[in-house]
Amino acid sequence: MKSVESIAVIGAGSWGTALAMVLADNGHDVRLWGHKPEQIDEINTHHTNQKYLPDITLPKNIIGHVSLGEAIGGAEVLVLAVPTKAIREVVNKIAVIRKGPMTIVHVSKGIEPNSLMRISEMIEEETPSHLLKSVVVLSGPSHAEEVSLRQPTTVTVSSKELEEAERIQDLFINQHFRVYTNPDIIGVEIGGALKNIIALAAGITDGLGYGDNAKAALITRGLAEIARLGVKMGASPLTFSGLTGIGDLIVTCTSVHSRNWRAGNLLGKGQNLQEVLDNMGMVVEGVRTTKAAHQLAEKYQVTMPITDVLYSVLFENVSAKDAVELLMARGKTHEMEDLTNLLGGQ
Amino acid sequence: MKSVESIAVIGAGSWGTALAMVLADNGHDVRLWGHKPEQIDEINTHHTNQKYLPDITLPKNIIGHVSLGEAIGGAEVLVLAVPTKAIREVVNKIAVIRKGPMTIVHVSKGIEPNSLMRISEMIEEETPSHLLKSVVVLSGPSHAEEVSLRQPTTVTVSSKELEEAERIQDLFINQHFRVYTNPDIIGVEIGGALKNIIALAAGITDGLGYGDNAKAALITRGLAEIARLGVKMGASPLTFSGLTGIGDLIVTCTSVHSRNWRAGNLLGKGQNLQEVLDNMGMVVEGVRTTKAAHQLAEKYQVTMPITDVLYSVLFENVSAKDAVELLMARGKTHEMEDLTNLLGGQ
Repeated sequence: MKSVESIAVIGAGSWGTALAMVLADNGHDVRLWGHKPEQIDEINTHHTNQKYLPDITLPKNIIGHVSLGEAIGGAEVLVLAVPTKAIREVVNKIAVIRKGPMTIVHVSKGIEPNSLMRISEMIEEETPSHLLKSVVVLSGPSHAEEVSLRQPTTVTVSSKELEEAERIQDLFINQHFRVYTNPDIIGVEIGGALKNIIALAAGITDGLGYGDNAKAALITRGLAEIARLGVKMGASPLTFSGLTGIGDLIVTCTSVHSRNWRAGNLLGKGQNLQEVLDNMGMVVEGVRTTKAAHQLAEKYQVTMPITDVLYSVLFENVSAKDAVELLMARGKTHEMEDLTNLLGGQ
Repeated sequence: MKSVESIAVIGAGSWGTALAMVLADNGHDVRLWGHKPEQIDEINTHHTNQKYLPDITLPKNIIGHVSLGEAIGGAEVLVLAVPTKAIREVVNKIAVIRKGPMTIVHVSKGIEPNSLMRISEMIEEETPSHLLKSVVVLSGPSHAEEVSLRQPTTVTVSSKELEEAERIQDLFINQHFRVYTNPDIIGVEIGGALKNIIALAAGITDGLGYGDNAKAALITRGLAEIARLGVKMGASPLTFSGLTGIGDLIVTCTSVHSRNWRAGNLLGKGQNLQEVLDNMGMVVEGVRTTKAAHQLAEKYQVTMPITDVLYSVLFENVSAKDAVELLMARGKTHEMEDLTNLLGGQ
């Protein structure tokens, strides 16, 4: 029999709400925080969150809160499900009102430009050490809609402390939602962040009218370049062959629901970055991540042809068509030269 | 300036014809062999092959032949593009009429049940050694239709003799059709063959109504189990991260045009194997390969949960639904345990 815990989920978007459902299904006492009173009211009164998970009925043991203090009071585990851009601000607010130590589970994907920090590093920087028991990342191939429908899903949790990862695994795991642990937090966070770059590029090739052959080549070479960088940063090459590497990459690059793919698709059809962002009307995480990855490639002296090409399209006004043609015609012809770098070879 | 060679392509299906087009585009003298006189007549008279590549005009330097002797006479390089099941028979016929040594490029995917031979091994077994200069495999993520439309495509060639692989690379490579070499012929052949098993399984999960999350998990774990077996058989783990591993796997599992995916889809919808085969009316290579992989797993003592489950559905009358639920609820929870085997660890 599992013990019941009080858990606060910070962020009532589709992913935060779907994860709250998993925890509630497992019998936990779940507080779901959002800043919009109407939305929280809907969650508590009608047990729905129509804007983010249409036609889904939420378990009754999810209680919505607009007060951050009420949501996190008495909860030792906090699940942080806010956009990457808002991480520092939200963690700051939590640190101000928090009394005792907490474990923060983050479920966001990205790298901060300029600081080049992973999300767990940003959280550590913003939280006084006496308040932070540990940071755990939960990542993997997981559309929120499918999780809310209790369709089979597998994710990975990772932390510097394996016991903390295992504790979070216990909270989330059930028959539909399989949770694996992986001790390589660098690899898990880098894979999750950088797949958005490849999704943008995949959207571009689709937008240009190229086919599945080109996209498969792009995904394959994209994974190799992510792994090359990750290994230089201290990740295990194996993590990129797992759920948070290839698994998440496949879902993001082959689903038309992916925001990053959609943005790339518009770029491929001839729009420039500003037009795309205006059209989408929402955050496209891959754009920020491309900037960060471009800086990381320089810092760690790693060859990242897809990132370079995408950077030139996003920020240097190179046409998507010219950029992709350049990429496809690239000289290297021995496949192993690309791949051996995965294991830190020459 | 490239030198012009006479090359015989044996098999005038969609893949053989598309590859003949690539060679013809590169200026070579291409003989395309097929056994149906009407089809060969159409190729020579109208420069089309409507049944296999509708609405495509073939280059005029492709000449069709119904006589195998005429097709291979004077051609030092033979491209073998016949179904896996027909390999031994066709190679046998060639060996009988062939005079001098030849290089055979095969482009098929499969493992022979019982003998457990890769295709290059079958070719070696069927050809007297004085006639066989070398065997080269060409494989990778490549829908024939896209190649015939000259859309960007990347493939890998591999041989025990690197110079022979490089020679074949030179014959095929052009602006749209990028050819890489890889010295690991075992890995290239195993990846190409076994992806059909995972495609069948992906079709089943789609047929059962599961979503993208489940499919991404299946592909990820499928790649791990293919790599585990391949490494035990002597392949490099890196090859499975390349075009003929993950690249080909992605194309096959995410395209509704894949025969194996379609067969799996019907199984997932409740048909049994005989009904599926009757409905499809054509060879489903993954079925034979599942039998062979099941035998290989036993021979090499490798854990292959997806192959096992698929085998029980195909040959032991287990329902697809029960089988997949069993697979999803599998116990192992440390991702690295699955993955370290890739590098031959414990």
